Amino acid sequence: MKGIWLENGEFVYRDDLTRPEPARGELLVRTLCTGICGTDLELQRGYYSFTGVAGHEFVGEVVSDGDQFGKRIVSEINIGCGNCDLCDAGMQNHCATRKVIGIEQQGGAFAEYLVVPEKNIFSVPEGIANQHAVLIEPLAAALEILEQVNPGDYSRVLVIGAGRLGILVAEVLASTTLDVSLLVRRQERLQHIGNPEINVIDKTIEHDFPLVVETSGQASGFSTALDSVAARGTIVMKSTYDGQLALDASKIVVNELTLVGSRCGPFRKAIDWLQSHSLDHLIFSSHTFKDVGNAFTQALDPSVYKVVFEPEQH
Amino acid sequence: MKGIWLENGEFVYRDDLTRPEPARGELLVRTLCTGICGTDLELQRGYYSFTGVAGHEFVGEVVSDGDQFGKRIVSEINIGCGNCDLCDAGMQNHCATRKVIGIEQQGGAFAEYLVVPEKNIFSVPEGIANQHAVLIEPLAAALEILEQVNPGDYSRVLVIGAGRLGILVAEVLASTTLDVSLLVRRQERLQHIGNPEINVIDKTIEHDFPLVVETSGQASGFSTALDSVAARGTIVMKSTYDGQLALDASKIVVNELTLVGSRCGPFRKAIDWLQSHSLDHLIFSSHTFKDVGNAFTQALDPSVYKVVFEPEQH
Repeated sequence: MKGIWLENGEFVYRDDLTRPEPARGELLVRTLCTGICGTDLELQRGYYSFTGVAGHEFVGEVVSDGDQFGKRIVSEINIGCGNCDLCDAGMQNHCATRKVIGIEQQGGAFAEYLVVPEKNIFSVPEGIANQHAVLIEPLAAALEILEQVNPGDYSRVLVIGAGRLGILVAEVLASTTLDVSLLVRRQERLQHIGNPEINVIDKTIEHDFPLVVETSGQASGFSTALDSVAARGTIVMKSTYDGQLALDASKIVVNELTLVGSRCGPFRKAIDWLQSHSLDHLIFSSHTFKDVGNAFTQALDPSVYKVVFEPEQH
Repeated sequence: MKGIWLENGEFVYRDDLTRPEPARGELLVRTLCTGICGTDLELQRGYYSFTGVAGHEFVGEVVSDGDQFGKRIVSEINIGCGNCDLCDAGMQNHCATRKVIGIEQQGGAFAEYLVVPEKNIFSVPEGIANQHAVLIEPLAAALEILEQVNPGDYSRVLVIGAGRLGILVAEVLASTTLDVSLLVRRQERLQHIGNPEINVIDKTIEHDFPLVVETSGQASGFSTALDSVAARGTIVMKSTYDGQLALDASKIVVNELTLVGSRCGPFRKAIDWLQSHSLDHLIFSSHTFKDVGNAFTQALDPSVYKVVFEPEQH
């Protein structure tokens, strides 16, 4: 099959990839659309040691025979072992030996076909376009914040970083009772902000926000979070950090801050959210797998919201 | 008056200090006993830029005329401006222009007399000895954890560090429903652990504790906290850190940890706690102000729990 192979941090188009075989409990899925995510760029930088087919933000069609045949689906990306205490407690996202589709030990959707566990899938309602369906995974990550923090406990929130995830976080938080400010450093990002209820700002005031969500993944972004959050406030850390992060930890103690690490989230709620909110203003750019070089170059262009792969249909 | 003067990180005995004059709303207090705390050692290392009389863990007797005359008291050390939103909200501990007795802009109890705001004082019940009364301030800091974290949400807790504060934290947590393990690196600290319900350990297991309290103030202690806490667990940061702390912040995100900074706490609850729990096994060493050099040397000796100053009585 056609697709993109990742090895030693290099994404290369190939037309001779082996189509994966679903094992018991797995389904074969034909890829309809796959997004390039920040994590894919980190795979390129060698942040994870993954060799294979990446791609974890995707929508596809089940082609295995059976009850699910023909369904358009998305899939939770974490695959727990199913046997440990964490999996028993419904925390397969934290299973110590979990696989992660397109990131760790499990092939992803930068290819014509992939396999996914049947228990991980969710049907995508008709009204949601393929390009928007690839946002279900990052939207779920954004919605995870609401599983961890009660918006009713805060009046205002600062979102730091207007990257792909930061914009979704701002949209999700603006759909609650929170008054949302989004710290934007690059002018080109402004066109991706479609919701007039999001206050776009380019600097912050010290100790001004009871709640701050850091999405930049940069030490400078985290430092801004520590300076902008009010005493006894909360910082949600919504991005991984490359290597060691040096921070003034005394600020956490002296100001009695709460830091909350936040990762993958609820797919069902993301699908529901997408049905009742518009993201039509977001700018997508579509490529075939063969065009992998241009696609990854464009993924660094701040004027495009999301670069996706859509395989040529047979 | 006699006392100890701090200047450029050096503590020097002097017999010519000016006795402070209480302003409106303040009381003059004769020092009975003052402890040397980790923060005082940080003052010595130049961690804060304070010049004057330090000493913030103390018990004294009110010598101002009036209703409070003759009372044995301890005092909250944070003095808010009284006019800002934080002070209005009862958060004077976080007032941006607060003074802190013996630490910032306000003289402390390493001298025969000090002044304290009347609104900050608490009477000390008769049954509490002077040496134990100096523990009310750090005990309040330990009890602050219970204001921030509900012990009923956790079964077990790891306390990292068996310093002066770590031991009080372990004692306080052992008086709740929590099963307490205390990570002790130095054999000499074992004699200060009087409660048989505290499990003393010298190494931890990865991702084993739903709740961890870091009291060491060392980067290595914080790293142990990140490794020992379970997925979706909580780390309470109960110590300031000197300079920048380098940490693997991705662990906070990937494991969806909660970090809670924790500082000063409730004096009233500390007094109540001390009336119903014994700390008689703790080893104190008492010095006069004149003996400042030996006192600060002994404060580094792990076989002594607490070094205190007790002025010669007239």
